[in-house]
Amino acid sequence: MLKGNMLIAHGGGPTPVINSSLLGAVREAKRHGEIETIYGARFGAEGILAGDLIDLGKVSEEDLDLLAKTPASALGSCRRKLTDADYPAVLACFQKFNIRYFFYNGGNDSMDTCHKVYQLACQSGYELRVIGIPKTIDNDLAVTDHCPGFGSAAKYAAVSALELAQDASALPIHVVVMELMGRNAGWITAASALYADLMPCEHLVYLPETAFDKEAFLQAVQERFAKGRGLLVTVSEGIHYADGSPVADSGLVDGFGHKVPGGAAQTLSDMIMAETGLKSRSEKPGLLGRVSVALMSEVDRREAEEAGAAAVRNAVEGKTGFMVGFETTRTPEYRSQLCLIPLEQVANAEKKFPLEWIGADGASIRPEFRDYCLPLLGDYDSRFISLR
Amino acid sequence: MLKGNMLIAHGGGPTPVINSSLLGAVREAKRHGEIETIYGARFGAEGILAGDLIDLGKVSEEDLDLLAKTPASALGSCRRKLTDADYPAVLACFQKFNIRYFFYNGGNDSMDTCHKVYQLACQSGYELRVIGIPKTIDNDLAVTDHCPGFGSAAKYAAVSALELAQDASALPIHVVVMELMGRNAGWITAASALYADLMPCEHLVYLPETAFDKEAFLQAVQERFAKGRGLLVTVSEGIHYADGSPVADSGLVDGFGHKVPGGAAQTLSDMIMAETGLKSRSEKPGLLGRVSVALMSEVDRREAEEAGAAAVRNAVEGKTGFMVGFETTRTPEYRSQLCLIPLEQVANAEKKFPLEWIGADGASIRPEFRDYCLPLLGDYDSRFISLR
Repeated sequence: MLKGNMLIAHGGGPTPVINSSLLGAVREAKRHGEIETIYGARFGAEGILAGDLIDLGKVSEEDLDLLAKTPASALGSCRRKLTDADYPAVLACFQKFNIRYFFYNGGNDSMDTCHKVYQLACQSGYELRVIGIPKTIDNDLAVTDHCPGFGSAAKYAAVSALELAQDASALPIHVVVMELMGRNAGWITAASALYADLMPCEHLVYLPETAFDKEAFLQAVQERFAKGRGLLVTVSEGIHYADGSPVADSGLVDGFGHKVPGGAAQTLSDMIMAETGLKSRSEKPGLLGRVSVALMSEVDRREAEEAGAAAVRNAVEGKTGFMVGFETTRTPEYRSQLCLIPLEQVANAEKKFPLEWIGADGASIRPEFRDYCLPLLGDYDSRFISLR
Repeated sequence: MLKGNMLIAHGGGPTPVINSSLLGAVREAKRHGEIETIYGARFGAEGILAGDLIDLGKVSEEDLDLLAKTPASALGSCRRKLTDADYPAVLACFQKFNIRYFFYNGGNDSMDTCHKVYQLACQSGYELRVIGIPKTIDNDLAVTDHCPGFGSAAKYAAVSALELAQDASALPIHVVVMELMGRNAGWITAASALYADLMPCEHLVYLPETAFDKEAFLQAVQERFAKGRGLLVTVSEGIHYADGSPVADSGLVDGFGHKVPGGAAQTLSDMIMAETGLKSRSEKPGLLGRVSVALMSEVDRREAEEAGAAAVRNAVEGKTGFMVGFETTRTPEYRSQLCLIPLEQVANAEKKFPLEWIGADGASIRPEFRDYCLPLLGDYDSRFISLR
């Protein structure tokens, strides 16, 4: 039995349900005598480096309940990537606060950090249990079937596309282009096609997993718009040409060295107007796709909470060096089960959208993805009426 | 008692609740023996000119129920502005289908059309009852206290801003700029400040009613971002400089001769990065702000349905040449009452956001607007939790 304090931190961009993982972890920690003080790091790695911790045991139960409906990170997050030079300060923080349980809640980069902290503890002989809690709207974490945060982002994309399709078909005077998040992985953008069969208008969808072909795109836009039903185009922010150059390039690089794409929807909309003469407009919900409480998936939220609780439970039981993941079955009905995945298998690995789930036209999504993704969205009434 | 058929048509951009007005009108019409066949025009004025009508009496009650939760126009709408040359064809359609009750559901331009149809009927001696049903997310119709469609668009703006504020404060690495609809009237953008007191970050808001001052803007952005809490900027698509030139100009003109603004949020975000060195990103939900079912205001929806019913009821009672409007009291509690406003008072008139409700800094909204607007949003739980 390892007695000591616990530290939980958030890394990278928030999701609608990352606070539910925090809720699950804190409530589980309260049940175990091994864990004395429950700390949260203020603004992720920044708080760890500065020793700026919050005593979460003092938060009232009523306030904890609100975590389940609060989007973004209640602790604060950061995009600071820890370097080797930072790790002595991390260890110093752990020693100062007698941290024996460390939980990092994040995506690819955060799991890399988590893995390095685990290795550091092993090498330095500091007794520490380290478990990663998965979090990313992008669904690009390796090995796990899916990742908390994605179900809600997918629901936002699917519902937004279906609702926009009502508008595009009711007033079919312009092509409507919507941009969705996902730089390298097209999972969220693919989700915009989940209700494609119910859409009253034409729909084209472009993911970053395939090369964007301008001529084929403009031809498809003209052919599909000409049917007179309206046309919705959904597109990932990270689409690029065959040579790898982004369709829209802002020229910026973020704190992790990732290129920041420019406005893909605006670029395509301008392209449509300039090259076809059709009217077009662009929508870019951007961050709204990761903060919507109304479109939060209850399945996603519950799984996020369970992942947080499972991380603490497993650490108390002696596990370390793992990320919590999900194994699922989908027939006869959706069931998910928590599992542990060695951190080295997920650190910096990236799971892209499967090419075999992209339609032969390069602008549609195959039904296999619907079978995979729809259960993650939870309840949603997709019935709309057209009298036209 | 005037016996004959009824025609209802949609004009201009849809709202989340325009189909509720249709629902109210159809259900009311079924109660009156004077109205024989209930027609809807397919795609608004286009359907009238082409004699392309839908028999709405044949729609099942179950399908009618779905109108209350279907955004955009179930009949189809259009942006075609009727000219004097079109009116003989309009009259011909009415005569062919024995239309004696005509309801046009739209905004400024549509009320102008409605008024002209009313005058045409008077001049030609064709017995016709004409009532306008108000519809615009922009809330810029004259005389009426507010307009169906606005409450839902305002709720979308207010909730989206409050949710984005959680993200901007949890990861305060960039300025977040959100663009909202409203070319000439800032009502929707002002609604983004309804929960300003609850925002965990700084907030600046810019409406088209005031001239945009670039230097003052950049200074405010730097000062407010420097506080370290995060910064959200909300801005109308139609903001312009003191000389009237748009901050973002797409160079396009729509079917009504209105200039189509470019990407105001993208322009401001680029401006921030270029001139201050701060990181910035832009969000532009665009049409999503007028189709969201999840953020539809129940107060707005109910009033939209009542407006449709009232139009039919008043027409059957002999009224013609009016638009349905709302008179309200807000103390001790919100109550709205339907009234009739002569069409000539609303045709092409535009109600802008009151300058006296804009803060002295030109980038905030005064509490008087909150008192006016919050009741229109209906139920919403604005409680979020920060542990930072």
